[in-house]
Amino acid sequence: MFLKNTWYVACTPDEIDAKPLGRTVCGEKIVFYRGAEGKVAALEDFCPHRGAPLSLGQVCEGQLVCGYHGLVMGCDGKTVAMPMQRVGGFPKIRSFPVVERHGFIWVWPGDAGQADAATIPDLHWANNPEWAYGGGLYHIACDYRLMIDNLMDLTHETYVHAGSIGQKEIDETPVTTRTEGDTVVTSRFMENVMAPPFWRANLRGNHLRDDVPVDRWQVCRFTPPSHIMIEVGVAHAGKGGYHAEPKDKVYSIVVDFLTPETETSMWYFWGMARNFNVKDTNLTAQIREGQAKVFSEDTAVLEAQQRNLLQWPSRRLLMLNIDAGGVQSRRILDRLVAQEQQQQPAGVAHPVQVA
Amino acid sequence: MFLKNTWYVACTPDEIDAKPLGRTVCGEKIVFYRGAEGKVAALEDFCPHRGAPLSLGQVCEGQLVCGYHGLVMGCDGKTVAMPMQRVGGFPKIRSFPVVERHGFIWVWPGDAGQADAATIPDLHWANNPEWAYGGGLYHIACDYRLMIDNLMDLTHETYVHAGSIGQKEIDETPVTTRTEGDTVVTSRFMENVMAPPFWRANLRGNHLRDDVPVDRWQVCRFTPPSHIMIEVGVAHAGKGGYHAEPKDKVYSIVVDFLTPETETSMWYFWGMARNFNVKDTNLTAQIREGQAKVFSEDTAVLEAQQRNLLQWPSRRLLMLNIDAGGVQSRRILDRLVAQEQQQQPAGVAHPVQVA
Amino acid sequence: MFLKNTWYVACTPDEIDAKPLGRTVCGEKIVFYRGAEGKVAALEDFCPHRGAPLSLGQVCEGQLVCGYHGLVMGCDGKTVAMPMQRVGGFPKIRSFPVVERHGFIWVWPGDAGQADAATIPDLHWANNPEWAYGGGLYHIACDYRLMIDNLMDLTHETYVHAGSIGQKEIDETPVTTRTEGDTVVTSRFMENVMAPPFWRANLRGNHLRDDVPVDRWQVCRFTPPSHIMIEVGVAHAGKGGYHAEPKDKVYSIVVDFLTPETETSMWYFWGMARNFNVKDTNLTAQIREGQAKVFSEDTAVLEAQQRNLLQWPSRRLLMLNIDAGGVQSRRILDRLVAQEQQQQPAGVAHPVQVA
Repeated sequence: MFLKNTWYVACTPDEIDAKPLGRTVCGEKIVFYRGAEGKVAALEDFCPHRGAPLSLGQVCEGQLVCGYHGLVMGCDGKTVAMPMQRVGGFPKIRSFPVVERHGFIWVWPGDAGQADAATIPDLHWANNPEWAYGGGLYHIACDYRLMIDNLMDLTHETYVHAGSIGQKEIDETPVTTRTEGDTVVTSRFMENVMAPPFWRANLRGNHLRDDVPVDRWQVCRFTPPSHIMIEVGVAHAGKGGYHAEPKDKVYSIVVDFLTPETETSMWYFWGMARNFNVKDTNLTAQIREGQAKVFSEDTAVLEAQQRNLLQWPSRRLLMLNIDAGGVQSRRILDRLVAQEQQQQPAGVAHPVQVA
Repeated sequence: MFLKNTWYVACTPDEIDAKPLGRTVCGEKIVFYRGAEGKVAALEDFCPHRGAPLSLGQVCEGQLVCGYHGLVMGCDGKTVAMPMQRVGGFPKIRSFPVVERHGFIWVWPGDAGQADAATIPDLHWANNPEWAYGGGLYHIACDYRLMIDNLMDLTHETYVHAGSIGQKEIDETPVTTRTEGDTVVTSRFMENVMAPPFWRANLRGNHLRDDVPVDRWQVCRFTPPSHIMIEVGVAHAGKGGYHAEPKDKVYSIVVDFLTPETETSMWYFWGMARNFNVKDTNLTAQIREGQAKVFSEDTAVLEAQQRNLLQWPSRRLLMLNIDAGGVQSRRILDRLVAQEQQQQPAGVAHPVQVA
Repeated sequence: MFLKNTWYVACTPDEIDAKPLGRTVCGEKIVFYRGAEGKVAALEDFCPHRGAPLSLGQVCEGQLVCGYHGLVMGCDGKTVAMPMQRVGGFPKIRSFPVVERHGFIWVWPGDAGQADAATIPDLHWANNPEWAYGGGLYHIACDYRLMIDNLMDLTHETYVHAGSIGQKEIDETPVTTRTEGDTVVTSRFMENVMAPPFWRANLRGNHLRDDVPVDRWQVCRFTPPSHIMIEVGVAHAGKGGYHAEPKDKVYSIVVDFLTPETETSMWYFWGMARNFNVKDTNLTAQIREGQAKVFSEDTAVLEAQQRNLLQWPSRRLLMLNIDAGGVQSRRILDRLVAQEQQQQPAGVAHPVQVA
């Protein structure tokens, strides 16, 4: 259950710099590569000659060359050349709209005719020298919607991440969830608490005392199809909290792009954008390492949860107030998927037929 | 094909001392843990909130706390508490009758209303200072009935365990099989033979000469659902064999609790209880190590046999006189399973419906 | 899709010298072993007693003894003996025609009544002291027909084996394909080219200069069911090419026996027979090592191609002139399989019924 007429993060630029990358997005097996002048391209990962994955090939002079028999494929899915062959009648393969922007490669796995690069989300912190970013990628064997639930309800930090970002006060502080169009926002504000280890380290990373009470906030923002940006931070208590002066707080955006691979597996692009001490690359590495550990804890829980749900497929889950963020996000997805399916009642038309 | 209204060994106490244990028994995914005052509890391994396995959680002040969002589960399957929530209307999960006795945790995977702890088998050697016990656990990818066949016909020792407990005379000595109610007993008595390596080591372990002929016996006793106790021993020849004085023999009980996991996999709790030289913990360790090696040889054969039976599902196997122990044990199981199914024609009623 | 009434290479002699070998050929699970006087035998890998694989057993005094309970099996599939048992009524298991010849063990997985050892291909280089041979075995997760395609079109060398035997001129030189009865021959002759690394090493191995232009040839010969012999070589340019004097060339036969395991997996017996410098065992080892590396490159491509074809089962592939060798070989197979199925419309009769 996923939207196809939308932009997903497919990979990061470094994944295609040296050679083509084969990756499945929303059930579509795609090869991503840098074509002429380094421009990113995305095609079905299937050579029209004998069916070998094009991702095993290499890019020569800006064109993708099949690693089996040397068929030269154009970024539009039309065969350009093949040694000793006339290729005019070769069947076209599908090409996917793909854009490099904000430090990510974005792909549109659905109807190419509807793709509009203007609808790629604007990431204000990307390409902004006042911000630093670090992140990573996990493959997780779960429905991406379990990760939406996870990120839109941070209550779990107390239990899953007890040693890093969890603290008892998360549990004890109510959340507020509101829906604005297709966006869902879940907020929690804690006042006058002691910071947990991850945040104490960040306070020190911004040259602030870590042994005094803080105000802490979490503002999770879901936008379709499955992008979740979480504003997180702590300020020395009584300095204005979320609105405190930069000198009194540390503040970041947890960046989560969830890309379905299949119905029960996903790619998790995670990271953190911060606007304090941005030149400190050691701090970037340290935050990244901390996040990697925290998110691997989620991975273990979500994969076990997915196995349980497959074992008991008919059981209904509870939807408590803390689950409102996930519940409302899924409602938006349900509505958008229904709209998409009404538009194309016979399924996504496949633009190419191989004779 | 297994009985559900009966007691199986689920685990050993050490497996749940530090943290909850998730284990599937007879197709039921169960979490085992120590609740209040260390009392063992068994529940469906499914948190009613979002379906995470409760076995990922931990026990706090005698109660099982879900590792995802902190739901506190009671040992009766009713939610006790959850931060910031009213839990009265939460659906109950299934609890399983469970008892700690004789050094094992016993679970009843069927209808809880029929569970009676008095029917847990009496192990006379357990908790008896005149006996010592050591054992282990193997997971085996085979129908547990293949292991019943294996243990109720020790002819295979000559071939599978040629280097430890096998000897040619096993083959050459007829077995006697008799059924007493629901119990099957298969016996073999060998007279005036040389002991094989495992028994020579045990003779030395009891300060007896190992280079003289012995009388050797094997008395395999099956009781439902799948418990097999095997009296084994050797006595110096001519001293009375099975009935010889303790000073002239070494005698043990091979302990085998077979617990179905699925139709084609099982948990094998194996061990040996002995009443000689019981204070010698080095001897206990040495016997355990020897058994571990011997039973790993069975594992390889049984898993290969299972794969063959799945490949040729319609082939009938031979039932020779040496197979009588297994054949008669399976007949008892067939009868008891048929009885159980007549009692509950619509399948095991599930006591809990999750709304 | 494979022929069953034909000879396949099942294994090499060394694989059965020490103990029985279990191997699946054309979907048949078979045990191969050396029986009386070292004569090879092949039986269903299923003990008629309890279904254990006979390949877990051992050969005692020329007879296969089951490793579970000591059943002694004859090479005709009839039980010879079992301790304490009368075996006259034991069901027979299937035996397969099997022949050791030319350094390989050949099996006939179909109707034994039609097997004729005279139809095993004649390998003129085997057992000929003027030739040396070295080879190996790979298991590959692909339909064996993908390997037929691969070997009957060496265009792929330019791309898959760029660092060893590939060179641009392969691509640029047309191939000729002809069918002679059930044999398909695809030839390519390149003139006045520089030898690639693998062939330069072979030139040196035959004490010939490696820095001068050569004429190079590839003559691929398919015979059913899936044997492909490829004459390959280089001669110093202008010395007669394929027909040059032995002193001016290096010449080998690439030996490829493809044995289906299942519809989507195969055993690949590969090797090289050469008639230069045949006493040099270091050279044999060096060539073998080079081939092993080259053929592992094919393995990676073919397994990825197989996964793609399973993902897109309805797509038709292109059949270009370079593919003619594979296409014509498949046509012969299609015809022979159709003939075989007409002979036995109800499937291969199973000669043994287990009571």
